[in-house]
Amino acid sequence: MPSDVQTSYSKRAEEYTTLFGSMESVHPSDVQLVTAWAGQIDGPILDAGCGPGHWTGYLAEKGHDSRGVDHVRAFIAHAREVHPGVPFDVGSIDVLPDAPGSLGGVLAWYSLIHHKPATIARPLGEFARVLRPGGGLLLGFFTGPAVEPFEHAVVGAYRWPPEVLAEEVRRAGFEVVEIHTRTGAAPKPRPHGAILARLRVTGR
Amino acid sequence: MPSDVQTSYSKRAEEYTTLFGSMESVHPSDVQLVTAWAGQIDGPILDAGCGPGHWTGYLAEKGHDSRGVDHVRAFIAHAREVHPGVPFDVGSIDVLPDAPGSLGGVLAWYSLIHHKPATIARPLGEFARVLRPGGGLLLGFFTGPAVEPFEHAVVGAYRWPPEVLAEEVRRAGFEVVEIHTRTGAAPKPRPHGAILARLRVTGR
Repeated sequence: MPSDVQTSYSKRAEEYTTLFGSMESVHPSDVQLVTAWAGQIDGPILDAGCGPGHWTGYLAEKGHDSRGVDHVRAFIAHAREVHPGVPFDVGSIDVLPDAPGSLGGVLAWYSLIHHKPATIARPLGEFARVLRPGGGLLLGFFTGPAVEPFEHAVVGAYRWPPEVLAEEVRRAGFEVVEIHTRTGAAPKPRPHGAILARLRVTGR
Repeated sequence: MPSDVQTSYSKRAEEYTTLFGSMESVHPSDVQLVTAWAGQIDGPILDAGCGPGHWTGYLAEKGHDSRGVDHVRAFIAHAREVHPGVPFDVGSIDVLPDAPGSLGGVLAWYSLIHHKPATIARPLGEFARVLRPGGGLLLGFFTGPAVEPFEHAVVGAYRWPPEVLAEEVRRAGFEVVEIHTRTGAAPKPRPHGAILARLRVTGR
């Protein structure tokens, strides 16, 4: 993840947290999707790029063994304060500290959007490494007709056609289980996508 | 709705009901979507093309003033038996008995898929007629890259690109609020779409 992302989010962490750092800001369909997905996970769940930690905290509340990681220190400080008892670490999703095959699920909710398309294989490869065979991956992202940058409120980001991102996910060793999209009245909210995938059991 | 649809469903109503006639066969995301949509509806809800009536019954259970209509008599007979106290009528969604502006919501879950594309304006116009201004419409359908027929287990049906169907919905007097899609691992389940719309308050 480029360091300008870290810098930009650090500067606006408070504002971002106020706007998006709670479950109240989440679309009910996303709550259902993440909840149902997590309910099928066997093993610890990593909220990869957890931001202010609202999903991590929510999953912990639901009884999951969840943990958050983000490279923006202000987010992690906030997350630790709001969700005491839930583990949060400062770190990059490009280089996870977890042992191979040690996790049941990885949630990457809008945390891949700042990766340049050519570098997205890196975190996806990390997710594949740390998940046990059959482990679950759930990605949230912005959709568009082509892989292209757009002006994100905090720092540059990319939208992906769902099938193009799904192909990256398959290339990283996953079987894509479902793809969801949602568009609202233009121009906001931005078209949204979600990919549910499972780490293939037989070698990649 | 063409009469061969009625005949074909009548012949296979029992089989269809066993396979799809209960909430157990419904995707959890659809349960959430319909539930959340219905929760925002003010007024009676018509389950237009209700089939064996599982959605009508579900909505009634949730406290909604819901009613089902379907032109397949065997479905309505089943629905009345399984959901006593919930009103069901035999009838066509092309010619609804309801008074103009008398309903709060119309659910048309996979009930437009058998209409030839050139005739879909008919039921959509009926929905617009019977809904009060601001009333809600929720459509479920199969998606595809073009408007095209496909071999449905019971009788011929059409898949629609979400945006093409959305345009028909707008033309009927609605504002499209959200479009959802979901694809699973090929070839089944079939790619699914849902359109949430609101009847425009100012004249059409």
